[in-house]
Amino acid sequence: MASAVVLLSGGLDSATALAIAQSEGFDVFAISFRYGQRHKIELESARRVAERMRVLKHIVVDIDLRQFGGSALTDEIAVPKGRTVSAMAEGVPITYVPARNTVFLSFALAWSETLGSKDIFLGVNALDYSGYPDCRPEFIEAYERMANLATKAGIEGGQRLKLHTPLINFTKAQIIARGAELGVDYSMTSSCYDPSATGAPCGSCDSCLLRQKGFAELKRLDPLVERFKAA
Amino acid sequence: MASAVVLLSGGLDSATALAIAQSEGFDVFAISFRYGQRHKIELESARRVAERMRVLKHIVVDIDLRQFGGSALTDEIAVPKGRTVSAMAEGVPITYVPARNTVFLSFALAWSETLGSKDIFLGVNALDYSGYPDCRPEFIEAYERMANLATKAGIEGGQRLKLHTPLINFTKAQIIARGAELGVDYSMTSSCYDPSATGAPCGSCDSCLLRQKGFAELKRLDPLVERFKAA
Repeated sequence: MASAVVLLSGGLDSATALAIAQSEGFDVFAISFRYGQRHKIELESARRVAERMRVLKHIVVDIDLRQFGGSALTDEIAVPKGRTVSAMAEGVPITYVPARNTVFLSFALAWSETLGSKDIFLGVNALDYSGYPDCRPEFIEAYERMANLATKAGIEGGQRLKLHTPLINFTKAQIIARGAELGVDYSMTSSCYDPSATGAPCGSCDSCLLRQKGFAELKRLDPLVERFKAA
Repeated sequence: MASAVVLLSGGLDSATALAIAQSEGFDVFAISFRYGQRHKIELESARRVAERMRVLKHIVVDIDLRQFGGSALTDEIAVPKGRTVSAMAEGVPITYVPARNTVFLSFALAWSETLGSKDIFLGVNALDYSGYPDCRPEFIEAYERMANLATKAGIEGGQRLKLHTPLINFTKAQIIARGAELGVDYSMTSSCYDPSATGAPCGSCDSCLLRQKGFAELKRLDPLVERFKAA
């Protein structure tokens, strides 16, 4: 059985990408990052998702992106609240973390090379995305091209490395619908950029609003919100 | 004055790349990595080089590449000794660290983005290189292309990011000659993959042998070796 490395943030998108990787027959190695994010409670979600979805191994890599600053997710900068979806689409938001996906993918690449995996999955999304440069298809294509020159396989030949982005052209509603079909329990996931200490979503950051819009379009309740209501 | 981020390992090549960046008028931000390398004494050299060459700032980033394994530089695998230069050129050596330059450059990219720098220097070398896939010109070009799509500038336009590899077509002797012209004190640098606890070079790993060959071709003594003889 072929194995794949999956970038797992603990959010809705990456849990769905993981389920899709498994549905395509891959044994999954999941990788998460403790990078100085203010919403580090997402790592608890990542752990739950990895456990429940029976991945082969889950590692959490420590990297300190705070030393570079420049983002509301790692710095003492306020997370924007209550923005409309069209406002989110204007320019690169302050929640963008400089070169984050480039950094994450470089570790996934290192791991896949030592595992002998030729497949990396990530849940990036270019449709309901929030203006992040490193979620665009042209970035992914350029990264894949670079990665195929970066490693031993690039000299010795053999099977090419492939970056899988199964959600890149999905709306948030389509992502949720696909994950639900595959049995993803979204009550385990965590999307909020500014959650409470217990992990309750703020309900008004860009990420919460996009998630709400997705569930609303499907006329479903978000099991995460229901879980906190019940608590 | 424009600023540049320089990857500084503490070795001969990166010290020379730093001097070249300064000679081209850049103010330098230097970045080094504590990545689980057995020759972590090179970080002492990096600190000395950064201090003596008066960089604006020097940071050492902690990342644990040991968790992936697969290299003699980070794993319990013996460093090869006494190989001929032609033997070094055959295939990818066991001292190759999976995706190391990809990982290092991703942090340099994150830092350059928050600094507003558009120039990154690295001392890779494709001529007297030791068969590393991520030191080849085609890798560097693909990385630069990817990096220009990965960041805010990739969406908002403006000056493109440039990866400078001033040593890529130099022999080791040419690197030393150029650095000496620019006043680099090579007694501060450390190239050995397997140094003693005091930092004395082993004299027989690939990196020591290439360094010896470079000084020998110039009919010069290596001031690092002389320093340890004197001690």
